[in-house]
Amino acid sequence: MNGVNDEQMAPQTFLYGCVLESGKEGHFNPEDDELEHQLDLRMACVDPSTKDELHTVEVEGRDAEGQVVKATLVTLKPSTLPSVCLGGFTITPPAVFRLKAGSGPVHLSGQHLIMMETGQSFDESE
Amino acid sequence: MNGVNDEQMAPQTFLYGCVLESGKEGHFNPEDDELEHQLDLRMACVDPSTKDELHTVEVEGRDAEGQVVKATLVTLKPSTLPSVCLGGFTITPPAVFRLKAGSGPVHLSGQHLIMMETGQSFDESE
Amino acid sequence: MNGVNDEQMAPQTFLYGCVLESGKEGHFNPEDDELEHQLDLRMACVDPSTKDELHTVEVEGRDAEGQVVKATLVTLKPSTLPSVCLGGFTITPPAVFRLKAGSGPVHLSGQHLIMMETGQSFDESE
Amino acid sequence: MNGVNDEQMAPQTFLYGCVLESGKEGHFNPEDDELEHQLDLRMACVDPSTKDELHTVEVEGRDAEGQVVKATLVTLKPSTLPSVCLGGFTITPPAVFRLKAGSGPVHLSGQHLIMMETGQSFDESE
Amino acid sequence: MNGVNDEQMAPQTFLYGCVLESGKEGHFNPEDDELEHQLDLRMACVDPSTKDELHTVEVEGRDAEGQVVKATLVTLKPSTLPSVCLGGFTITPPAVFRLKAGSGPVHLSGQHLIMMETGQSFDESE
Repeated sequence: MNGVNDEQMAPQTFLYGCVLESGKEGHFNPEDDELEHQLDLRMACVDPSTKDELHTVEVEGRDAEGQVVKATLVTLKPSTLPSVCLGGFTITPPAVFRLKAGSGPVHLSGQHLIMMETGQSFDESE
Repeated sequence: MNGVNDEQMAPQTFLYGCVLESGKEGHFNPEDDELEHQLDLRMACVDPSTKDELHTVEVEGRDAEGQVVKATLVTLKPSTLPSVCLGGFTITPPAVFRLKAGSGPVHLSGQHLIMMETGQSFDESE
Repeated sequence: MNGVNDEQMAPQTFLYGCVLESGKEGHFNPEDDELEHQLDLRMACVDPSTKDELHTVEVEGRDAEGQVVKATLVTLKPSTLPSVCLGGFTITPPAVFRLKAGSGPVHLSGQHLIMMETGQSFDESE
Repeated sequence: MNGVNDEQMAPQTFLYGCVLESGKEGHFNPEDDELEHQLDLRMACVDPSTKDELHTVEVEGRDAEGQVVKATLVTLKPSTLPSVCLGGFTITPPAVFRLKAGSGPVHLSGQHLIMMETGQSFDESE
Repeated sequence: MNGVNDEQMAPQTFLYGCVLESGKEGHFNPEDDELEHQLDLRMACVDPSTKDELHTVEVEGRDAEGQVVKATLVTLKPSTLPSVCLGGFTITPPAVFRLKAGSGPVHLSGQHLIMMETGQSFDESE
């Protein structure tokens, strides 16, 4: 079981980023390999091209009953709060990010973590 | 015991969100299944429909003696601080969230974690 | 030893909150049971009754030599920064919180964690 | 296997800092020893010499398919938000940081962590 | 090995605070006992006596090659951002904190963690 524990303690970390605009969603929906995927959202920010109004980001995911639910993640305004730390908000795929208010762009970034499924180690799969 | 440790290290993560308004509370009170539930609050934010005044969110939970206690969680104002990272504030059910000041809406979001009870593994329960 | 490790990985979490005003301190000093107590401070915030001036919170605890030391924890102002995430500032009892500047109220909130002492498990103590 | 687990739980921590300006990038690309390197970004901030405009920092890394990807990390402005906590944004080398907007300087800081590769312990390598 | 693992999972936590002013540095340089020391910086803040200008804090530590390096940690201004969460910035001794801009006072606070060295437990050392 040591191989499994090793991987769970040190998952592989990749860079994730998406840009939200009117009519342009962001997605976290990795392909269906046999691995466990997770997104740790770290930062949300505007850029100099973002209009100076309140921008609200919504995330759509699944609740514990498996139903699609929406939550309001963050609200930014260039002249008041151009960046917010999301503190490692863990997102389980599939998830969709979209602007509920404002026309963007709003940038989300974080870490795409890939872990082994329970009972499987890299030693076995590689 | 490996099954128990595995689940504790990698609980299942679901999306949680609620909207607080005058007279509209939020609740974290999962049904009594035999699993252990936890809420990691990540973000609090307003939206463009929120009136520009100080909004204060109160959480009602239990202290170490089992008594109902209230704590003031966060204070937001659209023109000053439209979003605040709550940094993973862990809430044990049952808990109630409500506005102590301001008429909202104020949005809370985070992760609903489900873990196995001590001495029980998914292998046994499924 | 499995019982001890289980509890250390998943301590019991309770809600902690206190309100600081002129002449009114907050305390974290759980009764002397045989358990290990810890406070993870999560948020500091003002409310609409807080005067619009800089409020500075001091914490009094112990340093590594066992001496009483004071540290300045956070400074808030309703019109500039009404809430601050403390990010899980771990406080070991006994500790005292007080306003060093401003008349309050300032609210602190977080998690009161209770863990087993080394070499003792819930199975044995209950 | 105990040596490996010990090191993974307590990696060695070093200080990392870089300064971004127009035409001056920051890099995280440790030399190819046999150790595992990771950067936990903690803070981004301006200084008194930074022009009062929005500064946007971009990070270039790798996604899960091994492709080079860019993400917008943070946006700062001296008169609005001179510092932002990045909350431990984990960066896997090689990575490049650069200003996408603004002329800087913008400062990034964090922890350079060095861990042992799987299947190898300090006891064996030293 | 259980004693070592226990201590690593639950290091002892003490309060750390320092005040930075012109010509007054802060230090994290615990005496050379046989224990492992670490500082988790949590908060930086000004107080009502701090002049309303940008204050920049520099930290001096060691990089992975053992060389002395400096990084810019945080920039605060009383009227814009009186407090910043540092999110648990881990500092390995010896380290020095100083103001690179502004005359202070600026307050740093956090947790001084003391852990056992690898291969040694409290049971053996006490």
